[in-house]
Amino acid sequence: MRDSAEHPVSELLTPEARTTLDGSGYGSWRRLATADAVSLAFGFPYPDSFRLDRLRESIETVLASEGRQALQYGGGEYADLLESAVRNRATARGIDPDETAVLLTNGATHAVDSVCRAFLEPGDVVAVERPTFMGSLTVFRNFGVEIEELPVDDAGLDVDALADRLHARRAAGDPIPKLLYTITDFQNPTGTTLSRKGRERLLALADEFDFAVVEDGAYTDLRYEGETVPPLAALDDAGRVIRVESFAKTIAPGVRLGWLVAAEPIRDAIDALAAGGANTFTRSVIGHYCDAGHLEASLPPLREAYAARRDRLLDALERHMPASATWTDPDGGFFVWVELDESVDTDDRLDDAIDAGVTYLPGSMFYADPDAGSNALRLSFSYADPDAFDDAIAALATVVD
Amino acid sequence: MRDSAEHPVSELLTPEARTTLDGSGYGSWRRLATADAVSLAFGFPYPDSFRLDRLRESIETVLASEGRQALQYGGGEYADLLESAVRNRATARGIDPDETAVLLTNGATHAVDSVCRAFLEPGDVVAVERPTFMGSLTVFRNFGVEIEELPVDDAGLDVDALADRLHARRAAGDPIPKLLYTITDFQNPTGTTLSRKGRERLLALADEFDFAVVEDGAYTDLRYEGETVPPLAALDDAGRVIRVESFAKTIAPGVRLGWLVAAEPIRDAIDALAAGGANTFTRSVIGHYCDAGHLEASLPPLREAYAARRDRLLDALERHMPASATWTDPDGGFFVWVELDESVDTDDRLDDAIDAGVTYLPGSMFYADPDAGSNALRLSFSYADPDAFDDAIAALATVVD
Repeated sequence: MRDSAEHPVSELLTPEARTTLDGSGYGSWRRLATADAVSLAFGFPYPDSFRLDRLRESIETVLASEGRQALQYGGGEYADLLESAVRNRATARGIDPDETAVLLTNGATHAVDSVCRAFLEPGDVVAVERPTFMGSLTVFRNFGVEIEELPVDDAGLDVDALADRLHARRAAGDPIPKLLYTITDFQNPTGTTLSRKGRERLLALADEFDFAVVEDGAYTDLRYEGETVPPLAALDDAGRVIRVESFAKTIAPGVRLGWLVAAEPIRDAIDALAAGGANTFTRSVIGHYCDAGHLEASLPPLREAYAARRDRLLDALERHMPASATWTDPDGGFFVWVELDESVDTDDRLDDAIDAGVTYLPGSMFYADPDAGSNALRLSFSYADPDAFDDAIAALATVVD
Repeated sequence: MRDSAEHPVSELLTPEARTTLDGSGYGSWRRLATADAVSLAFGFPYPDSFRLDRLRESIETVLASEGRQALQYGGGEYADLLESAVRNRATARGIDPDETAVLLTNGATHAVDSVCRAFLEPGDVVAVERPTFMGSLTVFRNFGVEIEELPVDDAGLDVDALADRLHARRAAGDPIPKLLYTITDFQNPTGTTLSRKGRERLLALADEFDFAVVEDGAYTDLRYEGETVPPLAALDDAGRVIRVESFAKTIAPGVRLGWLVAAEPIRDAIDALAAGGANTFTRSVIGHYCDAGHLEASLPPLREAYAARRDRLLDALERHMPASATWTDPDGGFFVWVELDESVDTDDRLDDAIDAGVTYLPGSMFYADPDAGSNALRLSFSYADPDAFDDAIAALATVVD
């Protein structure tokens, strides 16, 4: 096999595609995925959260009643039901169905990527939280854009800092971000939630500075305490918000289904550029699943199970972590963000942690800035056996002390 | 709902995204999809070609033996089996497994789109057959590239014309295409197949003029007569060919699974830019389906059924069409391309045809050039009941005479 640098066809690739060929960054993923240790690294739903019995019922119903249509281009009525289900979920969140339209996607990352295709050109600016979901950072990097990182505090995105940064950009004649990407509820990785007041102020800034907002609602359905805050998409009067959601956490990642809600012309433009047809079979099955009420019925026990997992992880942190460590206390979602003494480098300590029997994601993965996050880490309470949390955190505490 | 032109956020869209907002071109699709007429328009597999019994068996096996893994990020062993199955298919076609690597995609159009993302920037040139698959034309247009159309004769892409065009571009100092997109077997829409000699000459031109080739093999498994010609990807010594295939025609469109085979660094670059995870559930099911031999077992009866459909359509054309009409005689695939008297405009006649009880796709859909193809049309023998072909073609003949 030729080396990539030598391969003559590589020279025909775009600059962004060539950048990916240096291939850095995948080593630690592999180490984590194959480690024989308690996994607090990845945001996987716990396997028993998948309702195989209900999914089997939906598959059987779809195959028996319209199998040949569900397998054909375009699908049949069950595939259409999925679009209705998603619309109804948006309406229940307060998003005006007369001012928005829905686009089903192959998961949330596909949705974010599709939004980027419609908006971004190399050299554009995208504003993100600092830290933010590494999967979205990867998407933005692929478009050759400048990434402007904005601080997060206990109440999510620091909107004051955003305002300062926008005014500074305007004063300096620097480009204003075209898109702001924010995870408003139980942010990945910090678990923080933006207040209603913060959301309203953010939308006012979007109007004043003329940018669009991508609101990632991957965890919105998984609130364990506190009052629901209306999504940006429900507070938005100007059609600036594109809200992205997914069934990965509430049904299963493997069905690979997400969606976005946006003003209709924006949805249409995104749709026109998002090449490729739909997995009508999966859409039909999940269309039946939602229509039969299985999703709604599964949410209360899911929330209960995840809340108990969160509590056990927080208890373990309280019990074992060194005094210099601080961590967040999320009202929902999958993650706790831990900050350690400045001297601790969580990339360097990962191998020791694996040896001690626990995995985490190093904080540096969640920043565009290559020098940031080295004394932080993300813990996920979504996947591992909660009975293992206490020993795992005890082990972690010895490694990062 | 605001009009797209008025929507303030529309101004933030890329030029390519804004172009899609004029929304032309979808009217005739809707008319065709809802018409109460014999459908010779779309390249849909006939519904009884889907092996529901075998698919049900694969679904049951996957759910019973590793359901929770098949629904998780990454999938389990059955998902891995799909990659092996696709690799084995490539090897059986003569593609060197030591010089290539596979990437699974959400269908063939997603694969073509992913290749474009890695190679194309606005202003680049893509060479295509004239006429060619409208779905791929749409993908190329979305990248803001110049489309160079090359003639097709009875033996597929006219490689002499390609050579002339490349030399002319070089002489004029015009940019050389970065990609050439070709459907080598039973081309969509003409049904023609490029000879081995043509393939070898095409590859020599790719080397001489330094471009990459996207070989679309959507119909390769559906040959009804004549000798198999090795794919470009098997004849390629320079790693210039990216071969795209799909299970849409041999298993079902609704499983939305395709793949590409390319030199490893090219595959890696395409993979890094193709955002979003995999539908591991569908991959697992089709992984089992292929591993159990269901795909291989289904191909001979599929070929037999499609060959009989082709023969009945050709018989009907012979029986009814006006003397001025000519049509192709494909060795495989789904399509016959009909050329009519210069005075006939197939866009204009479509409504009359629907009224008379038959649908087709107007030739103009298959050209980038808006003035081309008006006296041609594509007929698909893949979907409608073959017992209806004779009446349908009799009706068509009266409309286009």
